[in-house]
Amino acid sequence: LDAGDDEAAYDLVEPLHPADIADLFELVERDYRGPLARAITDLLGADVLTELNDYVRDDVIDALPAAQVAELAGQLETDDAVAIIEEMEEEDQRAVLAELEPADRAAIVDALSFPEESAGRLMQRDLVAVPEHMNVGQLIDYLREHADLTTEFWEIFIVDPQHRPVGTCQLSWILRTPRHIALTDVMKRDQTLIPTDMDQEEVALRFQKYALISAAVVDGAGRLVGQITVDDIIHIVQEEAGEDIFRLSGAGDGDINEPIRETYKTRVRWLIANLGTALVASSVIGFFGGAIEQMVALAVLMPIVAGVGGNAGTQTLAVTVRALATNQLTESNTRRAILREMRIALMNGATIALIAGTATALWFHDIHLGLVIAAAMQTNILLAGLAGVVIPVVLEKFDQDPAVASSIFVTMTTDSMGFLAFLGLAVASGLVSL
Amino acid sequence: LDAGDDEAAYDLVEPLHPADIADLFELVERDYRGPLARAITDLLGADVLTELNDYVRDDVIDALPAAQVAELAGQLETDDAVAIIEEMEEEDQRAVLAELEPADRAAIVDALSFPEESAGRLMQRDLVAVPEHMNVGQLIDYLREHADLTTEFWEIFIVDPQHRPVGTCQLSWILRTPRHIALTDVMKRDQTLIPTDMDQEEVALRFQKYALISAAVVDGAGRLVGQITVDDIIHIVQEEAGEDIFRLSGAGDGDINEPIRETYKTRVRWLIANLGTALVASSVIGFFGGAIEQMVALAVLMPIVAGVGGNAGTQTLAVTVRALATNQLTESNTRRAILREMRIALMNGATIALIAGTATALWFHDIHLGLVIAAAMQTNILLAGLAGVVIPVVLEKFDQDPAVASSIFVTMTTDSMGFLAFLGLAVASGLVSL
Repeated sequence: LDAGDDEAAYDLVEPLHPADIADLFELVERDYRGPLARAITDLLGADVLTELNDYVRDDVIDALPAAQVAELAGQLETDDAVAIIEEMEEEDQRAVLAELEPADRAAIVDALSFPEESAGRLMQRDLVAVPEHMNVGQLIDYLREHADLTTEFWEIFIVDPQHRPVGTCQLSWILRTPRHIALTDVMKRDQTLIPTDMDQEEVALRFQKYALISAAVVDGAGRLVGQITVDDIIHIVQEEAGEDIFRLSGAGDGDINEPIRETYKTRVRWLIANLGTALVASSVIGFFGGAIEQMVALAVLMPIVAGVGGNAGTQTLAVTVRALATNQLTESNTRRAILREMRIALMNGATIALIAGTATALWFHDIHLGLVIAAAMQTNILLAGLAGVVIPVVLEKFDQDPAVASSIFVTMTTDSMGFLAFLGLAVASGLVSL
Repeated sequence: LDAGDDEAAYDLVEPLHPADIADLFELVERDYRGPLARAITDLLGADVLTELNDYVRDDVIDALPAAQVAELAGQLETDDAVAIIEEMEEEDQRAVLAELEPADRAAIVDALSFPEESAGRLMQRDLVAVPEHMNVGQLIDYLREHADLTTEFWEIFIVDPQHRPVGTCQLSWILRTPRHIALTDVMKRDQTLIPTDMDQEEVALRFQKYALISAAVVDGAGRLVGQITVDDIIHIVQEEAGEDIFRLSGAGDGDINEPIRETYKTRVRWLIANLGTALVASSVIGFFGGAIEQMVALAVLMPIVAGVGGNAGTQTLAVTVRALATNQLTESNTRRAILREMRIALMNGATIALIAGTATALWFHDIHLGLVIAAAMQTNILLAGLAGVVIPVVLEKFDQDPAVASSIFVTMTTDSMGFLAFLGLAVASGLVSL
């Protein structure tokens, strides 16, 4: 590409699988993505685009003319086309929509009318739905005769005259059944219906829980309007499961392809919040300034109490946040979860208190100081366990994402309470005076 | 159940979906799981067992006699039966295996011979494979005539005389093709083959990358021995994506159903390691004990430098660990990732240094102290960014799981370097003396 030899680049890329071409775009430097996209435009099929990371796709799409993007979008399933077009600037969106076939345009505009991350955005409109009176033979003939039907389906939906789903049929059942049997005798009536406005995270949980390959999407009146297939869900499961780790640490959406400026904005906001809570902990220390002047060993040991407590809090927090996200923790077992964490905290606290207390007593030749740090450790680890469950559960109750805000509050608790317990006990037990 | 009224319990549970019965077991107290399992044994179908959390399943299985477990295992697909039996004590395993039909027993013993978390354990042996000479009509007749074939298949595999896969055919393609067309004209030759010894995480990445619904599993000689379907993969994606958060915080496998003793063991080990690294940081403070006695404000501000630095390190670490796990970060872009993090760290550091420096100068009426903390913050955030990428990447290179050990090293770096930078600069700049 540096040498301007687009043809050589084309020849190199041609034998690759679409998913591997997508990887290639992610691996090259940002500046090369545009030229590469222009050099191999013919190879940029719909399947390459859908596999691209969102940010990288923006770079590629920006390099292509609107007509080209529209042609690509036309080849895609509705949900994939929407995923690409929703990320574009409004002006570019309009240009691409104008170039689309009227039917594709209508479908995409319609999908864009649903809220972001809802089933309506995820679904594809192409599906196979047939009336109740058909038998297996008629269905097979219908499928053979209609060349314009999608080939991307894993079950067929049986609908009533109002186009409401009444049952669903795995393709393997159809293939194993004689022609004269009615579809209503083969189909499963009990199916999972997804409303268009369901959040994608909830959709993904349904797919996992009921081991679905595809599912019918229905509008407010219960009419079949689309289907969602598991290949789109698996990306959501991956993202949703992976993103809690970024939320807990304030790392934004955690994508290594995100533009630096945006990453900076999310992360620095978090660090500033962290600075604020650290100030609370500092004030606690400030209050005990006199005690520290009398015994500098207190300053030396402080970070241990706060650090180990913070870590114990993070452990509980990670478990609670994931249990909430996967619906494993609900109102009915919250009390049990808190008790469980308290028992673990008691055991952890006792172990750590013993080790830290003994080590301190030996290091500073001061049994009193050892007892103080042991008691402070046990207290702080108990508080950490409590805060690690209660804070996310309360946030969830008030419809806040527990992964985002909990960690700040838990750290604030373990830091300030750790210092308070340690320095407070040192004063209260007469080791030092204020 | 308390009243011993098993029948009433049975009637209540009967109308539920298997996945909801599984949820019920997870929600009741541990002590009730055995009696509940005995009360509703008839309803405990294979589909309930597969949906149960591993630990809860152990409780349920323990309550049932071996013959009952064997009957359930016989109904399951090989992979699900293996998942249940591999968790049992050796003695119970033998009892259950003895009760199984010979064919099921052979399949399960065979599966158990593959390493844990490998494709061989995940695969099911039931699949549809047909020779190359068949046409669509012959295939449909074959499927209709063989009542003992599985119905759990989403594509059929076409094999050569040595039973090696030569192509694969989505069921929708078959349904849409006239009877006289040869399967070799409909099938896709280019397919993803999974060797039996591939790690399940790698299998899951293939499924995501190539949007697979099912895939052929082949042995060392390239012969088709089983298939893996996406419904098993989605659980793995969920677990693997979710577990990095537990590894980073040392929360074990993070399951709220794990027995307390095991949870304690994993977590306390981590806290002890943390105690060890905190000691390194404490030694740094101890070295500067004299300086702190001169100026207690240093002790007050210390946790801010270390805390914010630690948080910046965790942000970078979370992003790096996930990028490594999803194969987004490879050798070819490591250098770019490090440069990216350094640029972000420079921007974050400058912002935080400005705020913290100004606030300190105002709070303590001491511009010199403000400058010292600003310089220490910038240094520590830069080091945090560097450690957050380099440590996990190096661990990965030495085939260690970067999620497990990185966090300890990163925190140790940000804590000790934070104190060293802050206290060291205070001495070096003449604010205090040693």
